[in-house]
Amino acid sequence: MNDTSASLSHDDLLDRLADVAVATGVNVQEGQDLLVSADVTMVPLARRIVERAYARGAGLVTLSYDDEAATLARFRYGGDQAFDHDRPWLHEATARAMADGKIARLKIIGGDPNLLDGQDHEKVAKAERLAAAAGKPVIEKITRFETNWSIVAYASEAWAKTVFPNDENALARLWQAIFAASRVDASVADPTEAWRKHNAALSARRKLLDDKQYDALHFRGPGTDLKVGLAEGHSWGGGAGKTIQGVSCNPNIPTEEVFTTPHATRVDGTVASTKPLAHQGTLIRDIAVRFEGGRIVEASASTGEAALLKLLDVDDGARRLGEVALVPHSSPISASGILFYNTLFDENAACHIALGQSYAKCMKGGGTASAEELGARGANASMIHVDWMIGSGEIDIDGITEAGEAEPLMRGGEWPGEAR
Amino acid sequence: MNDTSASLSHDDLLDRLADVAVATGVNVQEGQDLLVSADVTMVPLARRIVERAYARGAGLVTLSYDDEAATLARFRYGGDQAFDHDRPWLHEATARAMADGKIARLKIIGGDPNLLDGQDHEKVAKAERLAAAAGKPVIEKITRFETNWSIVAYASEAWAKTVFPNDENALARLWQAIFAASRVDASVADPTEAWRKHNAALSARRKLLDDKQYDALHFRGPGTDLKVGLAEGHSWGGGAGKTIQGVSCNPNIPTEEVFTTPHATRVDGTVASTKPLAHQGTLIRDIAVRFEGGRIVEASASTGEAALLKLLDVDDGARRLGEVALVPHSSPISASGILFYNTLFDENAACHIALGQSYAKCMKGGGTASAEELGARGANASMIHVDWMIGSGEIDIDGITEAGEAEPLMRGGEWPGEAR
Repeated sequence: MNDTSASLSHDDLLDRLADVAVATGVNVQEGQDLLVSADVTMVPLARRIVERAYARGAGLVTLSYDDEAATLARFRYGGDQAFDHDRPWLHEATARAMADGKIARLKIIGGDPNLLDGQDHEKVAKAERLAAAAGKPVIEKITRFETNWSIVAYASEAWAKTVFPNDENALARLWQAIFAASRVDASVADPTEAWRKHNAALSARRKLLDDKQYDALHFRGPGTDLKVGLAEGHSWGGGAGKTIQGVSCNPNIPTEEVFTTPHATRVDGTVASTKPLAHQGTLIRDIAVRFEGGRIVEASASTGEAALLKLLDVDDGARRLGEVALVPHSSPISASGILFYNTLFDENAACHIALGQSYAKCMKGGGTASAEELGARGANASMIHVDWMIGSGEIDIDGITEAGEAEPLMRGGEWPGEAR
Repeated sequence: MNDTSASLSHDDLLDRLADVAVATGVNVQEGQDLLVSADVTMVPLARRIVERAYARGAGLVTLSYDDEAATLARFRYGGDQAFDHDRPWLHEATARAMADGKIARLKIIGGDPNLLDGQDHEKVAKAERLAAAAGKPVIEKITRFETNWSIVAYASEAWAKTVFPNDENALARLWQAIFAASRVDASVADPTEAWRKHNAALSARRKLLDDKQYDALHFRGPGTDLKVGLAEGHSWGGGAGKTIQGVSCNPNIPTEEVFTTPHATRVDGTVASTKPLAHQGTLIRDIAVRFEGGRIVEASASTGEAALLKLLDVDDGARRLGEVALVPHSSPISASGILFYNTLFDENAACHIALGQSYAKCMKGGGTASAEELGARGANASMIHVDWMIGSGEIDIDGITEAGEAEPLMRGGEWPGEAR
């Protein structure tokens, strides 16, 4: 804490978060259009973002609000005819318009993690599958960094109550945690400078791992003994990324992870989740799966197992890994001890893996290579991309070299030589 | 008033308005998708509409909120690069998706009539021109009734303060006026039945005028001596309309008018507006124009003249008429004595004309005829469609037959034989 702490109101902090979202997060360019999407409850941050984008010289800014209440109404009142299609026309048009970085994209997340609890699992799975298929063109543009994009968080009442049940200050506490993790709270004198330093540190870690070009990572811990082969010519990401046009952006605010591309057919062993996965309104706890030749062949969960099994059945790629990420157990979000029930935060508290689509950006030459080429080198393809946490203070990780030698990479969840 | 008056809360009245919007207004069909657009301040009505659409068996309902604050931010903070394009890609995709009635459309209006007061006129005109050009594909789908659509109103604070300045009950009074004009207030026992009867009355008036097939209408009153030639094979609209697929819908809630297509080159004389025109955030008062051969050759206004002249310069069709509408001076909205500063209401208080695009539906065979055919018969084409009021209790209108004989149509603003 420093002496600015007393002088920052909630509005000041929202101003700082909007500044970071626009300048460090999406980094909208002079004359570039921007799509901002948010829930209807997120007006105070959304409007600040629009104002700042225009003030930075953006082209046309399109702010479009969704409404979780309308999402829920579909499940409560909609018949089968409301679950046999999505709106691919809208996503296809959006993806075309985003090509060549013409439109940047900023998403504000933070809805109710339990929104769809108690709704018909079949409908939830069907809606998810349709949404994933319809949204694929946009996800591809983003994962290939054809434009600059970012995701930032907004504390909703429902989310706060999930994170801090039975606490009447839940909303204020969640906001405090978001501001801290997003490096805009009063302990930070200059958020833009703080982000510059943080991105530099992540960049150094990435370079080290890129130079190593490990053949595989070996995770060991309670319930986990997993070898994750890495794709041929994998490349590590983390912190700021660069679009094909060379525009820097921070796709996730906050972010602590470095991550790369597993090999879709070279993952073997067992792995246990270390935090619950909040997925499309369902909490999935104690995931335990076994991989054989890259594919999940056994899967269970103590709660939400049905939702997990549905997820794995979306397509063949849903049973394979598209991402592996390393996060020190001492990272600020992990140190907060808060379980956010939200991947944007929880994936930055622990090492994790993601089922489904890989990031072309995490493959050398991935920005221009075809999907077929990337697939041949081991990069997975799927309509989904779902992260879940496998890291903790009890996890050891070795890097396995091309020659088959094991090098200690993380011990007790920490990079060697870094403070625990 | 009847005995239901005491029992209807504001929520009850919103329920009724949502019922009318979904069932009588857009009449969304089993399995048909629905686009609902609203400002972010209109959540209570928008959510009710989504719930009812799903309960009626709609397909996917897409609720998307705009934000007037974001619109304003563009003018306050945006540079030239924010005013050199719109988002045609979005409107083109939406129009394609609406084809063949696949998606119905319901719009909730009621924003701040003075939103853009004090903003740069050049920017306002440029934004309007770009929006009109980009939005044309959707407007064409709607004016050709390729799908069912409707517009309903929601009372915003800013709108209420414009209508009832210096009245602390402004919002409640505007709501009362909206509920009354929309035939859902406590004086109406059964809104659905009330709309059925009202549509039947408008339909009878339309049939009478269709049978007459007047060559022209002659308006006389203070500042007005105008002959409006009617297009060849014009057809009168009003109340419920039918889509190409045969689905009935009420495009405007409320509606009192019957209207048809003027001849783009056969309008001559002078006409004075009888109410201010609230156009894109600018109030234009005391419009006086002279037509020659269908084209406005002189135009003035006591306030907002610059905005009027910009509007006329959007394209050649902006100086010609696309609609002429007859509304008795005793209609409920006129009788309320309220100037709403909103065309959806004010056009139902008085006879009016519209600059710009004609309605294909107001031409015999217009649903299938090409734009060229319709143009050859006198139907105007433009990127704009802007109504303004020319009716009052002092206006007399004759119908001019093919033989050149004048038949009294309205006297003192009323249909002959109907109560004043």
